[in-house]
Amino acid sequence: MYHLSVRDHVMIAHSFNSPTFGPARALHGATYVVDVTFYREALDDDDLVVDIGAAAAALGDVLAEFNLSNLDDHEALAGHNTTTEFMAGVIFTRMRRAIADGRLGAGAAGLCRMGVRLSESHIAWAGYEADL
Amino acid sequence: MYHLSVRDHVMIAHSFNSPTFGPARALHGATYVVDVTFYREALDDDDLVVDIGAAAAALGDVLAEFNLSNLDDHEALAGHNTTTEFMAGVIFTRMRRAIADGRLGAGAAGLCRMGVRLSESHIAWAGYEADL
Amino acid sequence: MYHLSVRDHVMIAHSFNSPTFGPARALHGATYVVDVTFYREALDDDDLVVDIGAAAAALGDVLAEFNLSNLDDHEALAGHNTTTEFMAGVIFTRMRRAIADGRLGAGAAGLCRMGVRLSESHIAWAGYEADL
Amino acid sequence: MYHLSVRDHVMIAHSFNSPTFGPARALHGATYVVDVTFYREALDDDDLVVDIGAAAAALGDVLAEFNLSNLDDHEALAGHNTTTEFMAGVIFTRMRRAIADGRLGAGAAGLCRMGVRLSESHIAWAGYEADL
Amino acid sequence: MYHLSVRDHVMIAHSFNSPTFGPARALHGATYVVDVTFYREALDDDDLVVDIGAAAAALGDVLAEFNLSNLDDHEALAGHNTTTEFMAGVIFTRMRRAIADGRLGAGAAGLCRMGVRLSESHIAWAGYEADL
Amino acid sequence: MYHLSVRDHVMIAHSFNSPTFGPARALHGATYVVDVTFYREALDDDDLVVDIGAAAAALGDVLAEFNLSNLDDHEALAGHNTTTEFMAGVIFTRMRRAIADGRLGAGAAGLCRMGVRLSESHIAWAGYEADL
Repeated sequence: MYHLSVRDHVMIAHSFNSPTFGPARALHGATYVVDVTFYREALDDDDLVVDIGAAAAALGDVLAEFNLSNLDDHEALAGHNTTTEFMAGVIFTRMRRAIADGRLGAGAAGLCRMGVRLSESHIAWAGYEADL
Repeated sequence: MYHLSVRDHVMIAHSFNSPTFGPARALHGATYVVDVTFYREALDDDDLVVDIGAAAAALGDVLAEFNLSNLDDHEALAGHNTTTEFMAGVIFTRMRRAIADGRLGAGAAGLCRMGVRLSESHIAWAGYEADL
Repeated sequence: MYHLSVRDHVMIAHSFNSPTFGPARALHGATYVVDVTFYREALDDDDLVVDIGAAAAALGDVLAEFNLSNLDDHEALAGHNTTTEFMAGVIFTRMRRAIADGRLGAGAAGLCRMGVRLSESHIAWAGYEADL
Repeated sequence: MYHLSVRDHVMIAHSFNSPTFGPARALHGATYVVDVTFYREALDDDDLVVDIGAAAAALGDVLAEFNLSNLDDHEALAGHNTTTEFMAGVIFTRMRRAIADGRLGAGAAGLCRMGVRLSESHIAWAGYEADL
Repeated sequence: MYHLSVRDHVMIAHSFNSPTFGPARALHGATYVVDVTFYREALDDDDLVVDIGAAAAALGDVLAEFNLSNLDDHEALAGHNTTTEFMAGVIFTRMRRAIADGRLGAGAAGLCRMGVRLSESHIAWAGYEADL
Repeated sequence: MYHLSVRDHVMIAHSFNSPTFGPARALHGATYVVDVTFYREALDDDDLVVDIGAAAAALGDVLAEFNLSNLDDHEALAGHNTTTEFMAGVIFTRMRRAIADGRLGAGAAGLCRMGVRLSESHIAWAGYEADL
């Protein structure tokens, strides 16, 4: 299996709604360094997993929805705790849609799996990975 | 599959007992930067893989058994070379027990897989990963 | 010149008040990975720059004032944009006070300089450094 | 599953031959930081995944074929775009041959899987992973 | 002294012209991860060292001259070995000119010092730093 | 001022002899990732700070004295706590001697300053820096 990864980041505010979170229930924030990994069984005719420029641009577009905002204000996220792992799932869904919409190029149809990892600090990170 | 990781470290002395190890048979030491990754098919009701505070605390407790010690003196490790990969397996077993004992919270019963990775330098690391 | 550094982090929300900041005027947040470096001309009688345990504890105490909060709500920061560089200066001042108060041990009186660096992402960081 | 990884690097020039690559069609270059991960179901009698010294030496030998060269001049790579992911596959093949030739020691016959990852910058990396 | 840093990268080919370089005289290449640090005695009225967006844009413009090219073909570099340290000096000069030309904003006139660091691998980096 | 850095590492055991160290008085160990930085006012005729190959080889030789050993057994270190900062000073002294002995090449006579940094974990590092 071949794979290729690109990195970007977002800076967000949010709060949590359950006693489980203790002091993190208060409004605070995070930088998420976001890594997206694309998997493909065999390389395409250009010896690529995916067009890295298109992949990075699509990731930037997906992250723009959340960057420099308060996640508590996003209707699409309402009713959820916007934990690092939850946001990884959200970004996965939007990147999968970007692939389906052709925004990573026609070759991206050959991708078979994708992973999203968000690092919230030097000691914690989380992610979501699934077949496409 | 969702996943969440926490990082901690230990500083240990040890020696090896087989000609395979060459000069590393002499008493020396290592810092192991320890990453533990928890896997879960779906997030819990709080949108979590696991309570990160409980996970970090349990890891700290597990590592305290070895931190600032000479691994050659641990009866539980006798008869083994305490290689990086072997110690990853040992820490995996103790973390699995911590989960079974409820020390990562009731929600940790939903975890399906765990990985332990020990980085011994900027050019070498090893680990153990298995279903729970 | 000898030096020793410790690392910790905070997760905060904030907003900015000047047109210079463009979209960052909106409420958002950041993880700051905080590195504090202590300088000393000669080592003390224990061959130390400073007691690393006391230094790490003092840094944790200083960061607790801001961790998991919205910097816009802190009276002590009112009237300022809580930029990464500004917060480095704030943490410097509080760490200097901790040294003066003896919270890093008596030996810390021998420190001659200190630096504080806050990394806000994998592509940007800022800091403040000065003699003590 | 146990695993062990070693890191090395190469510095190469190359160009690409398809419109997909845009400005990267021009002769340029890259540092590839190369991580090779070896997988094994159970540790050997020395509590090892593989002899780390032999693994690092074999990787160095494999990389020497490409280090400080222009990949466009390598007959073995002719007709391909030497993308990061393609080169990961090439290095995988040569490392698999090194294992088969006994250059990682007799114990390496117990390895069941291998992964090769090449990091080309702080924001992009690619790899190839397969059973042995 | 306050400081702020931004990171970007270039991917270049080059060769060296002196026996000192041994096998590196052959055409090869490198990824340079480029960190530029700006120093300022006191923060400006917005609590900034420099407008980070303008700084990052100016760095991108400076690097575009070299990115995805063969340094051997640049007239401006003729007669020199384009070592990592030499290129740090070149980028310093171009960034100083960008500041003088107002491309980092009017506030950048208050900068007193600048450093440029190029990391060529996980085990080597070089730079140039001087007053402005 | 130009500068160039190389990285290597050592894995050592040691213990401490003063109540200041608490549980670290027991025999334990560390991996020190060692960075040495060389400073020079102007580049030499080859556009170099120092011959990077000779610098890396000299560092390897210096570290070989300590690598895979118990620092408590070294006569040259007797009477000292082999803290991270103390060992940085020791390595500085040996590297300065290597420069004086011509082991970094004749050009190394033009170096004006050197820094040694030892990282003991992902959250702590120390060093020594001085003019040559």
